[in-house]
Amino acid sequence: MTDSEAIADRLRRAPLYRVLHALARNEVTSEALTGACLSAIARDHALHAWTWVDDAGALAAARASDQRRAEGKPLGRLDGVPLAITDVFDVAGLPTSLGLPGSVPPAADDAHVVRRLRGANAVILGKTNLDEAAFGTVGRNPHFGDVGNPVHEGRAAGGASAGSAAAVAAGHAIAALGSDTLGAVRIPAAFMGLVGHKPTFGELSCRGMGAGLRRLDCPGLITRCVQDAALLLPVLAGYDAGDPRSRKRRVPLAPPDWAPGELRAGVVADLAALGVAPAVVEKFSAAMACVAPVFGSAMPVALDIAPMEVAATRRAALLLMEAEIQAAHGERLLGASERLRLLLAFAENKSAVEFARADRRLDGYVVQVRRLFEQFDVLLLPTVPSPPPLLGSLEPANLADFTALASLAGCPALSLPLAGGQGLQLVGAPGSDLRLLELGEVLSAVADCASDA
Amino acid sequence: MTDSEAIADRLRRAPLYRVLHALARNEVTSEALTGACLSAIARDHALHAWTWVDDAGALAAARASDQRRAEGKPLGRLDGVPLAITDVFDVAGLPTSLGLPGSVPPAADDAHVVRRLRGANAVILGKTNLDEAAFGTVGRNPHFGDVGNPVHEGRAAGGASAGSAAAVAAGHAIAALGSDTLGAVRIPAAFMGLVGHKPTFGELSCRGMGAGLRRLDCPGLITRCVQDAALLLPVLAGYDAGDPRSRKRRVPLAPPDWAPGELRAGVVADLAALGVAPAVVEKFSAAMACVAPVFGSAMPVALDIAPMEVAATRRAALLLMEAEIQAAHGERLLGASERLRLLLAFAENKSAVEFARADRRLDGYVVQVRRLFEQFDVLLLPTVPSPPPLLGSLEPANLADFTALASLAGCPALSLPLAGGQGLQLVGAPGSDLRLLELGEVLSAVADCASDA
Repeated sequence: MTDSEAIADRLRRAPLYRVLHALARNEVTSEALTGACLSAIARDHALHAWTWVDDAGALAAARASDQRRAEGKPLGRLDGVPLAITDVFDVAGLPTSLGLPGSVPPAADDAHVVRRLRGANAVILGKTNLDEAAFGTVGRNPHFGDVGNPVHEGRAAGGASAGSAAAVAAGHAIAALGSDTLGAVRIPAAFMGLVGHKPTFGELSCRGMGAGLRRLDCPGLITRCVQDAALLLPVLAGYDAGDPRSRKRRVPLAPPDWAPGELRAGVVADLAALGVAPAVVEKFSAAMACVAPVFGSAMPVALDIAPMEVAATRRAALLLMEAEIQAAHGERLLGASERLRLLLAFAENKSAVEFARADRRLDGYVVQVRRLFEQFDVLLLPTVPSPPPLLGSLEPANLADFTALASLAGCPALSLPLAGGQGLQLVGAPGSDLRLLELGEVLSAVADCASDA
Repeated sequence: MTDSEAIADRLRRAPLYRVLHALARNEVTSEALTGACLSAIARDHALHAWTWVDDAGALAAARASDQRRAEGKPLGRLDGVPLAITDVFDVAGLPTSLGLPGSVPPAADDAHVVRRLRGANAVILGKTNLDEAAFGTVGRNPHFGDVGNPVHEGRAAGGASAGSAAAVAAGHAIAALGSDTLGAVRIPAAFMGLVGHKPTFGELSCRGMGAGLRRLDCPGLITRCVQDAALLLPVLAGYDAGDPRSRKRRVPLAPPDWAPGELRAGVVADLAALGVAPAVVEKFSAAMACVAPVFGSAMPVALDIAPMEVAATRRAALLLMEAEIQAAHGERLLGASERLRLLLAFAENKSAVEFARADRRLDGYVVQVRRLFEQFDVLLLPTVPSPPPLLGSLEPANLADFTALASLAGCPALSLPLAGGQGLQLVGAPGSDLRLLELGEVLSAVADCASDA
């Protein structure tokens, strides 16, 4: 390995902001960095992190970036940075597998968010593996292989955007774009010591992204630190007339408007009653003790109040997803595993009236969560109720319960890594993404102390 | 009739802005005006405009208003003005019939918009009649009687908020609050020479309003002129955490931002192909000729482009409504007419997957309409494709096709009266309500010329 190869091989594991710095100072070329990523991908094939790798396209984009830089031409905000894209997003020229088998023609257009990344001159390495039809929380995929967890070997990757998180954790890509319906970005991020950000619903376009449940679907970010999410979000956010749920914001995302010691925190208190593992309760409490001084006040919050009955809400959301996945993907599901087909068949035996009833139940939950934010500014809770389960063990039913809260209510959520494959989750009121990211930068420094304890 | 009774009897037919003026100058008392309205309601019983009239409550509120005025106390923006409320909204102390039979306990709380009206010290006269479960477009109701059309006798009232429009047209109330899912406020307004305004989706809270189809439901206004709608809208609009679809607007509704000769108009051109009656085509074209000078440009728009296939979209929306009405009202529907029960039963035989498929179809329509507003600022089209049908004739299937456009896309819409029970409809991009109302004031003066032709 030459010196410059060694530098590239080190930088493929660096945060995005460091990589941009290194590229700007000519410490590395995009081609070398992209090459290092592609080599790592090839070496780590057993991780099953990828569905398609576009070696030629990525290297061509990297060389073009290096040439722009050499010629002093205008550079995009992510010029030359190799990224991973979960294989639910259309990338022009590549098929969109959705984690399902069968041959599909290459997508004609980029998904809206992929187009934004390309507009910023990012290098698209390829597409990453996920639970079949993005319906799952552990990264299980019988067609492309179960996704491994490079940080906690022998443990589940989390899901559905498992491959994207594994790719970032293994140094295959600097950051990744995932899709988050009930927690699909935040769960694998927590399981692999990464940052996961699900933005406010409607801020990022879902055009060209395979549907899970349209009233919840959100593109999301998997990064190595909070700063990286803050760099990516403005590239991705924006109104798109082609997404019926995209919202035209008349003012920018809420600007930083907080100061240490002024924000009111709500801290979920009834963790044990909600089925949270003792190890998670302990770690979360230790983290809370560390971060408390950042807030002006911290009030305990009970989540399991009657109208939010967690299990019933989960069941309602799953029925809607099962119906929508069938409506969206139709014949693509014919090759799916029997397990998935059995799960989805549930919706066929439910009537349209039952769909409407389940959808109304979610409305009640939205109102409950909205009211919470009348009492405080940020809600703090674990990202996942248990550490990553052993590979091959039964998929825990409650893995997305804590991430679903922000999804159901359209709130932005940020998962910060805690030791042991756990996550500290911040949830804010809709539109408070930038505040949440700034706060997350402060807390992640503090919470690191907790994770060493 | 005394002089003051005669004045009150004249004012019950006056626009809201005139009534406020008369109250302020002590030309009339709220008690006299309210009394005149209640007398007219009693006399016009055969119109079947009302389900419940709250004589005592209304008179008490009117006397309290007069006393505030006499004592020089602070007055609400609608202090002492008698209003009608469609019987889908909860009014504390009165049952909410939804146009269905059977005894229900009185509502404990006001619907959010009713609370806003009461907070402005309006006088609530009672609740007005509507199609059963608000599912219909002609004002047919086997339990409270079919609503008559006081302007075009022997013709249908339009619906579903038929009673509210009839009450305003007959001088029972100065203005009315209706609910508009696919056109329920605009259709009867057009059929009775009134103004109907459906605001941008999410601006007015739906809490305490019986559900038709939650992704479309909107409280709406029925008034005698555009100015009156402009007076009522700011009283009603506002974020409500209790409505999961209410939106927190970070800036006020788009302020007036147009000048004559600058706005780009889109004019629906393929009217005959869309099944519009020749009389309506003629009247609409004449109106267009009159209003053209107000705009900077006018481009013809074809609505029946493939993805908007009107009939298929209509069928999809109706399936969703049928399912949601059952999910929302459940046992209340047991006493409904066999006709309604047969219509609603359709949804029971459709699966959750078919619901999701229909809902996805509406998404495609939303995108089409959003794209239209990239080409122009205001869309002009008839409110209804035919003049009011004869009472007792078959309910035309396409009566809501032109109003559904704004409903499906969440756009604000304003129906201005044309002669012959027709309407000129303006549709704007979401959030452009105030611009639409200002434009409507100008156009209604011009379009009056057309209606005399």
